[in-house]
Amino acid sequence: MSDNPSFVLKGILDAEIQQKPVPEIDANEILVEVKKTGICGTDVHLLVYGGLGGFVVGKPMVLGHESAGVVSKVGPGVTNVKVGDRVAIEPAETCRKCEACKEGRYQICPDITPVTNGTLTRYYRLPSDLAYPLPPSLSLEDGALMEPLSVAVHAVSKLGALRSNQSVAVFGCGPVGLLCMAVAKALGASRVIAVDISPDRLEFAKTYAATDTFLPPSIDKGESGVAFSTRNAQAMKEKLGIAERGPQAIDLVLDASGAEVAIQTGIRIAKSGGTFVQVGAGNRDVTIDMFAVLCKELVLKGSLRYGPGDYSLAIALVASGKVDVKSLVSHRFPFTQAYEALEITRNGKSPDGKGVIKVIISGPDVDINEV
Amino acid sequence: MSDNPSFVLKGILDAEIQQKPVPEIDANEILVEVKKTGICGTDVHLLVYGGLGGFVVGKPMVLGHESAGVVSKVGPGVTNVKVGDRVAIEPAETCRKCEACKEGRYQICPDITPVTNGTLTRYYRLPSDLAYPLPPSLSLEDGALMEPLSVAVHAVSKLGALRSNQSVAVFGCGPVGLLCMAVAKALGASRVIAVDISPDRLEFAKTYAATDTFLPPSIDKGESGVAFSTRNAQAMKEKLGIAERGPQAIDLVLDASGAEVAIQTGIRIAKSGGTFVQVGAGNRDVTIDMFAVLCKELVLKGSLRYGPGDYSLAIALVASGKVDVKSLVSHRFPFTQAYEALEITRNGKSPDGKGVIKVIISGPDVDINEV
Amino acid sequence: MSDNPSFVLKGILDAEIQQKPVPEIDANEILVEVKKTGICGTDVHLLVYGGLGGFVVGKPMVLGHESAGVVSKVGPGVTNVKVGDRVAIEPAETCRKCEACKEGRYQICPDITPVTNGTLTRYYRLPSDLAYPLPPSLSLEDGALMEPLSVAVHAVSKLGALRSNQSVAVFGCGPVGLLCMAVAKALGASRVIAVDISPDRLEFAKTYAATDTFLPPSIDKGESGVAFSTRNAQAMKEKLGIAERGPQAIDLVLDASGAEVAIQTGIRIAKSGGTFVQVGAGNRDVTIDMFAVLCKELVLKGSLRYGPGDYSLAIALVASGKVDVKSLVSHRFPFTQAYEALEITRNGKSPDGKGVIKVIISGPDVDINEV
Amino acid sequence: MSDNPSFVLKGILDAEIQQKPVPEIDANEILVEVKKTGICGTDVHLLVYGGLGGFVVGKPMVLGHESAGVVSKVGPGVTNVKVGDRVAIEPAETCRKCEACKEGRYQICPDITPVTNGTLTRYYRLPSDLAYPLPPSLSLEDGALMEPLSVAVHAVSKLGALRSNQSVAVFGCGPVGLLCMAVAKALGASRVIAVDISPDRLEFAKTYAATDTFLPPSIDKGESGVAFSTRNAQAMKEKLGIAERGPQAIDLVLDASGAEVAIQTGIRIAKSGGTFVQVGAGNRDVTIDMFAVLCKELVLKGSLRYGPGDYSLAIALVASGKVDVKSLVSHRFPFTQAYEALEITRNGKSPDGKGVIKVIISGPDVDINEV
Repeated sequence: MSDNPSFVLKGILDAEIQQKPVPEIDANEILVEVKKTGICGTDVHLLVYGGLGGFVVGKPMVLGHESAGVVSKVGPGVTNVKVGDRVAIEPAETCRKCEACKEGRYQICPDITPVTNGTLTRYYRLPSDLAYPLPPSLSLEDGALMEPLSVAVHAVSKLGALRSNQSVAVFGCGPVGLLCMAVAKALGASRVIAVDISPDRLEFAKTYAATDTFLPPSIDKGESGVAFSTRNAQAMKEKLGIAERGPQAIDLVLDASGAEVAIQTGIRIAKSGGTFVQVGAGNRDVTIDMFAVLCKELVLKGSLRYGPGDYSLAIALVASGKVDVKSLVSHRFPFTQAYEALEITRNGKSPDGKGVIKVIISGPDVDINEV
Repeated sequence: MSDNPSFVLKGILDAEIQQKPVPEIDANEILVEVKKTGICGTDVHLLVYGGLGGFVVGKPMVLGHESAGVVSKVGPGVTNVKVGDRVAIEPAETCRKCEACKEGRYQICPDITPVTNGTLTRYYRLPSDLAYPLPPSLSLEDGALMEPLSVAVHAVSKLGALRSNQSVAVFGCGPVGLLCMAVAKALGASRVIAVDISPDRLEFAKTYAATDTFLPPSIDKGESGVAFSTRNAQAMKEKLGIAERGPQAIDLVLDASGAEVAIQTGIRIAKSGGTFVQVGAGNRDVTIDMFAVLCKELVLKGSLRYGPGDYSLAIALVASGKVDVKSLVSHRFPFTQAYEALEITRNGKSPDGKGVIKVIISGPDVDINEV
Repeated sequence: MSDNPSFVLKGILDAEIQQKPVPEIDANEILVEVKKTGICGTDVHLLVYGGLGGFVVGKPMVLGHESAGVVSKVGPGVTNVKVGDRVAIEPAETCRKCEACKEGRYQICPDITPVTNGTLTRYYRLPSDLAYPLPPSLSLEDGALMEPLSVAVHAVSKLGALRSNQSVAVFGCGPVGLLCMAVAKALGASRVIAVDISPDRLEFAKTYAATDTFLPPSIDKGESGVAFSTRNAQAMKEKLGIAERGPQAIDLVLDASGAEVAIQTGIRIAKSGGTFVQVGAGNRDVTIDMFAVLCKELVLKGSLRYGPGDYSLAIALVASGKVDVKSLVSHRFPFTQAYEALEITRNGKSPDGKGVIKVIISGPDVDINEV
Repeated sequence: MSDNPSFVLKGILDAEIQQKPVPEIDANEILVEVKKTGICGTDVHLLVYGGLGGFVVGKPMVLGHESAGVVSKVGPGVTNVKVGDRVAIEPAETCRKCEACKEGRYQICPDITPVTNGTLTRYYRLPSDLAYPLPPSLSLEDGALMEPLSVAVHAVSKLGALRSNQSVAVFGCGPVGLLCMAVAKALGASRVIAVDISPDRLEFAKTYAATDTFLPPSIDKGESGVAFSTRNAQAMKEKLGIAERGPQAIDLVLDASGAEVAIQTGIRIAKSGGTFVQVGAGNRDVTIDMFAVLCKELVLKGSLRYGPGDYSLAIALVASGKVDVKSLVSHRFPFTQAYEALEITRNGKSPDGKGVIKVIISGPDVDINEV
């Protein structure tokens, strides 16, 4: 247990596998041998831009935060898992003593650890309560996907408070958007509308979890976002028979695209008294129609990561067969090709032309076919 | 009971007193002899622009919707009030059978009546449950102010869900902003910060209900709202010692100004996990910092009119001495000078230079000194 | 449209079919030709005891309140349904203007009409917003069952606030208990435990919507309810592996039996931080373990009838195939045999020994095989 | 810092001051020199019965849990307090990693430490986030009272969710009941009704925080609790003009007496749609009227200890002058007379006949007049 290859980001477009010391663990901590890691837009952004939002990559950091593995060592105080258990990893620790942590919203803990000691490594250290045992029906790849699924659970179930028979529209058909649709469907949504500018993504969404899809018209040259979104919302309402109230109205709108025109359109199609949840970042400055917010008494919420209970619900939704995550895995790479894995995620497709949904990197010395 | 002079808006800057038929009442309706009516920005907007938002003044309409009076006639099914009772009037009826009405949010009822048969009249007809008896300690002028106070109660208490010992910032020191501060203070806010570009208004706010005031710096020529609001928020945080979390953080921000830079600043100073409530319209297209919404998991809400229970709480807050509305009345006019009353509201001050907060127009033949 | 046979309760065990005048309707009302009516314990209780709770049958009354039919006449103000529409009937009107009605809890409106002009009649009058059009996939018998299903929706979804992957225990396997299980399952409960003293009912519950069943041991002679329920809860925990916390804990307990020992047991098995909902009356005086309520910070709620949105969700759950109501119909009678229908409901089985779940009485001249 | 006299309970009615080792502290812990400790019924119960509920005093334990003191040592990781700070102590640690802790309800953490290393000692060890700095306006005696005040804040503000202008009834005028009244008043309750069987206590309640008082009639010989409480509730309604709905109705009932007849009466007088909160234990088996719970859709909640934010609000309510705790201190004893302090609490009055509300024991070598 001394060999610990890790995928280290050193600077912009500069990353390599290095040996890192095997982490020491405290009494309530465990060491997980990472088996599968999903690649996320954040990883790519860090690689390409050397930072994200206010965060700048300073010293070399290990990438990766969507992972599952097998417990290889437990501290003496650990009771919830044992060596050999297959677990999903909830990355990032929180202080457990600030107001946010105590009140049940640890996702906004100011001391939440940025994942600079990421999971693209052999041995990953974490407090044992952040390791969630996988039921037999979940593979390790499924386990790696519990991280983005928890993001969707947080946005749709906790913040969106979706209830059975409500209607949902999701803008953006990337992995998080797709998972939001899957969660909405699993929670009993009567209608799940997928919106994206890619017909291919919409087609996938339809086979995956959407009941309806909408491909926006092109934005005209010189057309403002405000004007386009007004036109887009109108087209969407007409095509899909969306009303402002009643059973044809959209109770919950989620934006998982980050695109300003998507957010603008989303606010316009939400029902009177409805909810809009922003999940995932894109444009920082977004011009919204405050009259719509006011006259419809809309509620807009930002959704950050995941909080208490979200991982558990994510796992349960997959275990019960209500959410499928397997079909999201489009590409698999061995650990030694981690860089290539990030590159095709950046490109959106592999050299053979196959579109990327979710790329999985196996842990060091783990076969990519061992899912 | 046949004489019914009413202040009728006929077109842009065209209004006059006309005789209108005395309304007939149904079994559950009452007729109120209107004694005092407050003038609101909406009335002025209708006079000056001939419409508001999507609403356009078509045929002549009676203005006014902030009123109190004395019950002069009751239908046979009425039990909650009797002839002679002094009542505050909740204007605008709702359908009572749509989803919004049944679920306790009648303010977003699609069939809510626009107040085109306004209260600047002698006899006003309404369902009896929308008339709220005034306790002896409330004057009829106080009663007229229950309408804007209910707007504030709705925004601060119901949507803002303010609880004792929380901190509040209110942008805009017009009547609704001031009343939001008063409600916040009455509900036990530990800190009530008033923000306005007028030092005079801030001074009044300080004597009225604010614990702190903030006068924003001037916006630089060519400076964007985004840039200005970043600078403004920083200045505000420094001057007032505002933190992102903990006891120095702002739990609830209300914008009662409608100004884009106010909204932008408000979102920047709200605490992590906080709430922003928009009350009252101004700029339609508002560019907000979606990263701030996301990273702080902010909740943004539009606040429209008032809903169930808001009038009752408004009256109770005044009756218990927790909110003072009397000091907001800056000018009084007899019914025959209704047009002048709207004009000085539009000007923001009377010819003698006195700043307008709230102008009260007495009912026909009611003495302006009979409060 | 002058013939209006109605099933009239005149006194204890004294009921007959009489002609009643066809009701007049107001502008916003409709007349429904009743096609199918379910019989409920309340109907039987009124027949056998001449009253229920504080309500005493005074003058002759028409029984029945679980019905669906076809719209035969609409007032001039009606827009939501038209003649010929198949509708489920929400019985009992509310005042629409009291605090409860306005705040979204019309089920506790003090002026809610007792259903003394019941639905066991040919023509039933109601406000049009209380008639819910049936989607094509719902039969009229299904429609009649929307009333008890709404009771279950109210208890499980609205008051119980059940969310996906939670565990539920339901005491009592009568129609309402069964429907509570069905709603729980439809809303994504991971575990639905049925408890009843009848093995036959448990067997049905298992095929219907329960994942687990529990048959309590016999109460010992002289054993107090407190002692028995302690023993019963212990047996239940052991047999079903119920824990006080975590995934094996019971998030929501519903009592649909009214039996004191069931309530007592339910409180003992609810998880720490859980919820107990009482739906339907039985024993009035119930001795509960207040230490358990305190130490687990339990929330106990009484669930009365149904409120805003409950009928709509009930219909949607059946239309989407998530809830099956057809298999609850155990017996069918023509209108002329209404008395026999009540008698077998009272007996719990028909002369041929078949157990009663739900008995349906067809409307006058409606074939019992026309479902 | 080696002298650590502690008041040790060894068995039933057997307690004495012993030297205990000064506790070691971890990185995030502090040592507080305890200055003032309030005596609570729990302490007395442990002394007299050798246990409480399921808890039995096994090995000798240090009593006391309502304390304030001065920080005498801090671990290297501590940032929120420093040596010399005056702090209120939140006793009992929680695990910070179970579902309850993470979801914001640490009061039901299964691993919450029983306070067997109590605060009747010189040096008390605790995690630094459970020490709350006292504002200058709070004395150390005030600080000691933050513990019972937090119990009241939890019951009234968090669970009772009391809002301005609501009406409250509190059964039991011991310290917790009185503090519930004080919190209710501070949060803006329009009416605070105190109920107790002691006229003296009612008199004190009236001068302290109650707006109304009610002295129940005597229970008749052989009269059941059900019968008595029906009569008692009727008398209370008549005397105080309590209605089932509207402004004369009781929104929130709290029982701080633990007496079965109080609970029974409280459920009968709560308004339709109201809330009943049980705070503090008394009778275990309580017979309640389940019809009342059902027909009024009451919500009953058990309130245990205090949770996130309760201490902070307690301190703020005193600092802002909204709650007075000083007048609750009826007796003061030096540390050497701790046993006597418990005895007079048990007796309810001191030998001079003065009724006990709250007894304060000073820390070792602290003057009882140094408040």
